Amino acid sequence: MNTRRQNWLEKAEALKPRLLRRDVEPSRLVRPERDGEAFQGWRMVKADAPTELGRDFDLVYDFGEHLVGQLSFKVEALGVVDCPCRVKVQFGEVPAEVAESFDPYTGGLGRGWLQDEVVVRDELPCEVSLPRRYSFRYVRLTGERNGGSYKTRITGLRCAAVTSADASAVDPLPPSVPELSRRIDAISLDTLRDCMQGVFEDGPKRDRRLWLGDFRLQALVNYRSFKNYALAKRCLYLFAALAAEDGRVPSDLYDKPSPHAGRCDIFDYVAIYPSTLLEYAQASGDWDCAAELWPVARRQAEIVAAEIGPDGLFMNQRPWWCFIDWNEKLNDAKLTPEQGVAIFGLKRTLELGRALGKDAEVACFEPLVEQMSQAALANCFDAKRGVFVSGADRQVSWASQAWMTIAGVVSGEAAKLALLTAMADQEAVRPAGPYLNHYVVEALFLAGLPAEAEALLESYWGEMARLGADCFWEVFDPEDQFRSPYGSHLVNSYCHAWSCTPSYFLRGGVRRR
Amino acid sequence: MNTRRQNWLEKAEALKPRLLRRDVEPSRLVRPERDGEAFQGWRMVKADAPTELGRDFDLVYDFGEHLVGQLSFKVEALGVVDCPCRVKVQFGEVPAEVAESFDPYTGGLGRGWLQDEVVVRDELPCEVSLPRRYSFRYVRLTGERNGGSYKTRITGLRCAAVTSADASAVDPLPPSVPELSRRIDAISLDTLRDCMQGVFEDGPKRDRRLWLGDFRLQALVNYRSFKNYALAKRCLYLFAALAAEDGRVPSDLYDKPSPHAGRCDIFDYVAIYPSTLLEYAQASGDWDCAAELWPVARRQAEIVAAEIGPDGLFMNQRPWWCFIDWNEKLNDAKLTPEQGVAIFGLKRTLELGRALGKDAEVACFEPLVEQMSQAALANCFDAKRGVFVSGADRQVSWASQAWMTIAGVVSGEAAKLALLTAMADQEAVRPAGPYLNHYVVEALFLAGLPAEAEALLESYWGEMARLGADCFWEVFDPEDQFRSPYGSHLVNSYCHAWSCTPSYFLRGGVRRR
Repeated sequence: MNTRRQNWLEKAEALKPRLLRRDVEPSRLVRPERDGEAFQGWRMVKADAPTELGRDFDLVYDFGEHLVGQLSFKVEALGVVDCPCRVKVQFGEVPAEVAESFDPYTGGLGRGWLQDEVVVRDELPCEVSLPRRYSFRYVRLTGERNGGSYKTRITGLRCAAVTSADASAVDPLPPSVPELSRRIDAISLDTLRDCMQGVFEDGPKRDRRLWLGDFRLQALVNYRSFKNYALAKRCLYLFAALAAEDGRVPSDLYDKPSPHAGRCDIFDYVAIYPSTLLEYAQASGDWDCAAELWPVARRQAEIVAAEIGPDGLFMNQRPWWCFIDWNEKLNDAKLTPEQGVAIFGLKRTLELGRALGKDAEVACFEPLVEQMSQAALANCFDAKRGVFVSGADRQVSWASQAWMTIAGVVSGEAAKLALLTAMADQEAVRPAGPYLNHYVVEALFLAGLPAEAEALLESYWGEMARLGADCFWEVFDPEDQFRSPYGSHLVNSYCHAWSCTPSYFLRGGVRRR
Repeated sequence: MNTRRQNWLEKAEALKPRLLRRDVEPSRLVRPERDGEAFQGWRMVKADAPTELGRDFDLVYDFGEHLVGQLSFKVEALGVVDCPCRVKVQFGEVPAEVAESFDPYTGGLGRGWLQDEVVVRDELPCEVSLPRRYSFRYVRLTGERNGGSYKTRITGLRCAAVTSADASAVDPLPPSVPELSRRIDAISLDTLRDCMQGVFEDGPKRDRRLWLGDFRLQALVNYRSFKNYALAKRCLYLFAALAAEDGRVPSDLYDKPSPHAGRCDIFDYVAIYPSTLLEYAQASGDWDCAAELWPVARRQAEIVAAEIGPDGLFMNQRPWWCFIDWNEKLNDAKLTPEQGVAIFGLKRTLELGRALGKDAEVACFEPLVEQMSQAALANCFDAKRGVFVSGADRQVSWASQAWMTIAGVVSGEAAKLALLTAMADQEAVRPAGPYLNHYVVEALFLAGLPAEAEALLESYWGEMARLGADCFWEVFDPEDQFRSPYGSHLVNSYCHAWSCTPSYFLRGGVRRR
């Protein structure tokens, strides 16, 4: 690592937040019950506390809110402890995770992400403090086949909940904001709070990683709520310090055990680094940091530009992982939405460069942006229908319309037509998750369709709220509550940063262009 | 607790041994293979070390000997650690425990006795040091469904083996001792070594408890091998300190977290406390201790005497747990063998009292012993066949003959006839485990049947040795290798103190009367 990067890493480490800790006790005992109307078929009903535990027990504690932290409890014994005490601990962000068995596990990601542990203690009474950090609202404690002649009592169960988000920094919403929006805002902020740890994690259950795409959205909400500018700055330095040899920032990185880059190269994430830096400077006023990291931002723009062919179209030569959304129906490396992201990223680089007085360094991007926009209209636009299409089969998707609108390739009536046409087209590929839904909402606002934007907010995030979400989820498909990109709904993250953006919109984050 | 008992407890605690620690590394990798000829159907074959571990792995490490201690290892990662590492650790004293799945568990004792653990670590590399003490020769490490993109390498696996037995104190056997006997002696001493911890545990896997019946046998072997007199003394004080209100010593006790009595009242165990104290004094020369604990010994004799009816026969009024042996075919509270144990216990109390100059205090037991012996001959003896019988159905068992011989109710030719008749009788109830087998061997030696005694030693303990035992087992039925008093062979203890007594016989512990 060269000196400059080492210096950025040191700055990032100096900005490591001291976590705020709050001890939380469970509010009640519950019992999962089958309910076809409830999310994933489970609702929680209040359960009575047993007057006395036996050798075996099975209790679900409800902490009343989503928490991230370390669990501790005591096990007391009534009688002579003639065999070890074995307690299975199972955590749930949502009811299904404590109502269902984790095994046999069908998911493609590591079984270690499923939050459970078996505690065996030879001597009682004992204090148990689980070393791993868990992310949960519900905790199920099961004593099975304990077989001794003694009884046990669980006492002192509590979570030392941690976050780097200071709730006292959040302004109240204006009184005019309606109830559902207030509820959505509160869930959004709880989501962001629990993802704000040593870095902006994508999800505190999984992957606990700093993803550039998620980070940008988290930061945007953070500037309008917790205002932890230092944490955003830390993350910007981390991406800069951990860039590859060619200057490309990682798409994902880890802060533990010590900062290191992940293995993913996502084109749409790299393209938005300059915008993320610009947004930080605008929100915090810390233009010195923007100036220091400007070479990193400019380098990302160069890397994006290098992927554009002589015809002005994104070529995907590396090849990159083109993310955009989890919907596997999106075809052909998602060429048109990536074209939009690339144009957006270059435009924001121009804006940042000019704000920093680096006009000469960004001048080259201006004709490129123009060429790319024209190429998109010439090659990726069905002028007859007024929608953007993608790939050889000229696929229509919400993604293409959203990103072309955000990129400003279309605006005003043309943008409205593109968005409304795609959204009315039953064949059009819809978003499969919150990340792309965010950009569709943003595009609708930008296109002057606030009613449609709010309707989407309320139908998508509002539906999660109606289904009892404490935090917004990584994956939510109203048509399939068990949808998972990883082969099991149990490994999905149910507190996921990229889902926290309703507060951005509800707190004035976007205005019609 | 009164002052005297408190004082004994303090003496016991002052005698708490410093454990000897030895770091042991595994000697090889093995793989369990089905083999109808091997113990419980599994033999271990040498396995090659993988050149590189993958995400998932399944390795069985063979430490080459039975150990008791704490396991530690390191997990190193090759590649970016993008999900937690989950390692299942399963311990086996015998191959079946690592070859078979513990679940679903069918045993009646607590599942917590089965030695396994799941380790999940979020950050790699990491050092894992399992907090529980385990008892094992084999360790299976399984990484299942780890699902990350990195590979792992296990290094530095080792056991910090502990014992309070000092192997350097053991005298070599004379050169004349044949190979099989040497092997049996070595296994016996390893068994005792691994049971010698803070107290004489019955089994380091299970129950990790000080049982009076097991303790007496362990102490007898210890005096002829490791010679840790302090540990025996500690245990004698513990039983004395933890006696019930009426002075009855507990049949089992726990030294952790602090000394406390178990819940069992075993008549045959209480009856042998005076003998155990006498044997300690004889072996160590510490007659001061015997004098101090004499009231406790005498009190046990009184308690035994109180159970004898006016006809001189054991009544079992409490009722007591009459243990004698696990064989559930033994009928009616095992009245005749318990009669033998009671006579033996009272005779040893007489011997101890006289050695301590307490003749007046024990004089009352002399006529009782005589009456009990005559009552046994009159009521529990089939004079026509020359065997002792028990209960209304006049059951013939090895147990009755053994204990009547040890008690000296019969001797010489009469004892020979009783023992040989029962042993030749296919209907006679045989021993189901090592504890009673020990007393049968002792009775055979006492009756002047050394060839039969040695044949039983070699056919019973020798068969365990031939089956590959590293330590002698809690339960061994040559007809049923899966026999368990607890519903599962997996919860049996395969290093069990009451099984270590061949060394007592091989090292001159018993002579014909």
